[in-house]
Amino acid sequence: MPETSPTRSNNFDGWLDSYSERAHTLSVSEVRALFAVVSRPEVVSLAGGMPYVSALPKELLAKAYESMMAKKGDLAIQYGGGQGDAELREQLRDIMAIEGIHASPDDLVVTTGSQHALDLVAGLFLDKGDVVLAEGPSYVGAIGIFRHYEAHIEHVFTDDDGISPVALQEAIDRMKAQGRRIKFLYLVPNFANPSGVTLAKERRPQIIEICQREHILILEDNPYGLLYFDKPVPDALRSMDDNVIYLGSFSKILAPGFRVGYVLAPPALRDKIVLAQESALLCPSMFSQMMISEYLSVADWRKQVDTFRGVYRERRDAALDAMSEYLPNLRTTKPDGGFYLWVTLPDGIDSKAMLPLAVKELVAYTPGTAFFGDGTGQQHLRICYSYPTPERIKLGIKRLATVINLQTELIETFGKKK
Amino acid sequence: MPETSPTRSNNFDGWLDSYSERAHTLSVSEVRALFAVVSRPEVVSLAGGMPYVSALPKELLAKAYESMMAKKGDLAIQYGGGQGDAELREQLRDIMAIEGIHASPDDLVVTTGSQHALDLVAGLFLDKGDVVLAEGPSYVGAIGIFRHYEAHIEHVFTDDDGISPVALQEAIDRMKAQGRRIKFLYLVPNFANPSGVTLAKERRPQIIEICQREHILILEDNPYGLLYFDKPVPDALRSMDDNVIYLGSFSKILAPGFRVGYVLAPPALRDKIVLAQESALLCPSMFSQMMISEYLSVADWRKQVDTFRGVYRERRDAALDAMSEYLPNLRTTKPDGGFYLWVTLPDGIDSKAMLPLAVKELVAYTPGTAFFGDGTGQQHLRICYSYPTPERIKLGIKRLATVINLQTELIETFGKKK
Repeated sequence: MPETSPTRSNNFDGWLDSYSERAHTLSVSEVRALFAVVSRPEVVSLAGGMPYVSALPKELLAKAYESMMAKKGDLAIQYGGGQGDAELREQLRDIMAIEGIHASPDDLVVTTGSQHALDLVAGLFLDKGDVVLAEGPSYVGAIGIFRHYEAHIEHVFTDDDGISPVALQEAIDRMKAQGRRIKFLYLVPNFANPSGVTLAKERRPQIIEICQREHILILEDNPYGLLYFDKPVPDALRSMDDNVIYLGSFSKILAPGFRVGYVLAPPALRDKIVLAQESALLCPSMFSQMMISEYLSVADWRKQVDTFRGVYRERRDAALDAMSEYLPNLRTTKPDGGFYLWVTLPDGIDSKAMLPLAVKELVAYTPGTAFFGDGTGQQHLRICYSYPTPERIKLGIKRLATVINLQTELIETFGKKK
Repeated sequence: MPETSPTRSNNFDGWLDSYSERAHTLSVSEVRALFAVVSRPEVVSLAGGMPYVSALPKELLAKAYESMMAKKGDLAIQYGGGQGDAELREQLRDIMAIEGIHASPDDLVVTTGSQHALDLVAGLFLDKGDVVLAEGPSYVGAIGIFRHYEAHIEHVFTDDDGISPVALQEAIDRMKAQGRRIKFLYLVPNFANPSGVTLAKERRPQIIEICQREHILILEDNPYGLLYFDKPVPDALRSMDDNVIYLGSFSKILAPGFRVGYVLAPPALRDKIVLAQESALLCPSMFSQMMISEYLSVADWRKQVDTFRGVYRERRDAALDAMSEYLPNLRTTKPDGGFYLWVTLPDGIDSKAMLPLAVKELVAYTPGTAFFGDGTGQQHLRICYSYPTPERIKLGIKRLATVINLQTELIETFGKKK
């Protein structure tokens, strides 16, 4: 994989024989490779995954900044504790309570985005060869972390109601029959990245029951739960089982530039997360934490989340309308919240191979292969509708249709490749 | 070591059999265990290591905030690239040039404090059992990271002129004779934490020559270099060898609450650091980075660093004066910059065992054992003079003298323990 990295090929590396084993697990992600493309204004990017932060009134932040600095300026720019700001952790209770979680702030650890929470937790559990169970498809950033810890990612069949309990049990049995150590089940239960699907209410206790019986830890990653379009999501898995490790984030309900996320964990594990965090970066930014804490105090943050919901609902509608209009024969998920559509391509089209053609047509997406740890996913692609305007989304999907239809015609004329 | 953790002892841990090997390397640091004590106002804390951020005029930050949000508000709260903000990296050139480093912004990676840079770099090199060479004593946070990666830390004799080239060569020969893999030399060349000593100008090329000949990477960690009291420090090791990995930080010359540091590395390694950073936390905070970038643009940051120098010079003087007055027979380093004194106790006094007695006398310090990876250091302690006022520093050292003198008397009367 290193050979494919465009940034490394012409750099002579005098330390090549010195790297650790884990250094060789790193490769340029397919999402990252797109960043250069995405930044060109003529390209409609349906890749990315960026929230539309322009919908956040900057006056709210200015108010928070002034109030924070007036009240606790010296604390905001000083080192803080490794567990995170106590006041922010107290405020997080209200946010988690919306999805039925009633927890102590003592069991929360604030982190540098929920990505770092996931990295810290994964590091505490994963030895080389350990198994992580994950939805199929699963979040690309999680796959990267699990790979970095040299874990085996076993995808579990996932449909429009989320991960399948039957398939989960089968996967567990399969891994156990192979004598492998399963460390945890990782899932994004609400408006998942990349599928957009939500784990059905009736499946939640089933998933918990299986994992309890099999003594498998659950990592519930929930950055999108509050961004529902019509009705609230079912209660979190964590609300039904205190042993679930719950990850939350401000990146989607406020802004990612602060890099503030959090993890709720049983006390013994929480202590280990704090120690791992202190080792990695001493403490999360007090400046970022206190900005968010103050924002939650001085702004009507629930109303702002509602504003975001409206923005993303309109964009989801634009995306689905455009799919019906330009690609009526393709199967796509129909998300009730969040940022993503998951599209199944006609037989014989490889989304990764098609990407350069799409970019030539001035539209970008993320190939399905990014969301699997096992090399599959070629027949899928992810559309992210959170960032472009509805008009741009429609234009992008129209362009995508041109590319897909041309591919389909080629296949019909000349037959499938390979 | 886990048994000694006060926060873990009464937590039943249902996942004890699931943790990774690396999870067992984490233990509560001696510095961290002091945090609870330090926060009591009646205790003079000479522990810690906190910069005196009250000396930073908050108007300068307000100006930076307003200017940043007016110019690039949406970018400041959005995701950024994994290498860090390009404008900030450009500005870092001027800062590094002060110590003779002329580098491309392309070779810089901005990180969540320089601690995270160190964690990322260590992770790219260290496998279990690999050797890290380090000053004796060395930075407690670095020791924690190297332990977490299960490395062996080999301390190299260090005197008032910094790490000894002769001892370095001996340590290398010793490790090689044992068949061990040396991965890098870690050092804090200026006003080191905890010793306060600076690597002499004439030793710098000698250290580089040895490491080049032995093909050993150098990690130069330099958070304090600009905080000299009389004359600037010698040019950085990195200015003499492009292969040196150089770590810098805004925590001491501006404020730690932003968690912004940086690492300068050869291109092939830089690419790996970016990938490791993206895996760990996607990107460093744009909000923090842009605040600092704007601060560097709109404020007279050199003048502010000069203000900090004055504050710390006065406190260093207060500390040394108090040492002469109350503990005239103890050997202490005499730093020309930075935050720390390194004190050698009379024979038979154990700084760790003495700490509870000191806290009873309402003074706290950091025991020398925190700064060694091999359990030594009992006869030393670190005094940090950066945070308390000169009067409080004198009071603290007076109290410390009471404790030490009582210990000395006890030893003279009853003989040494053990």
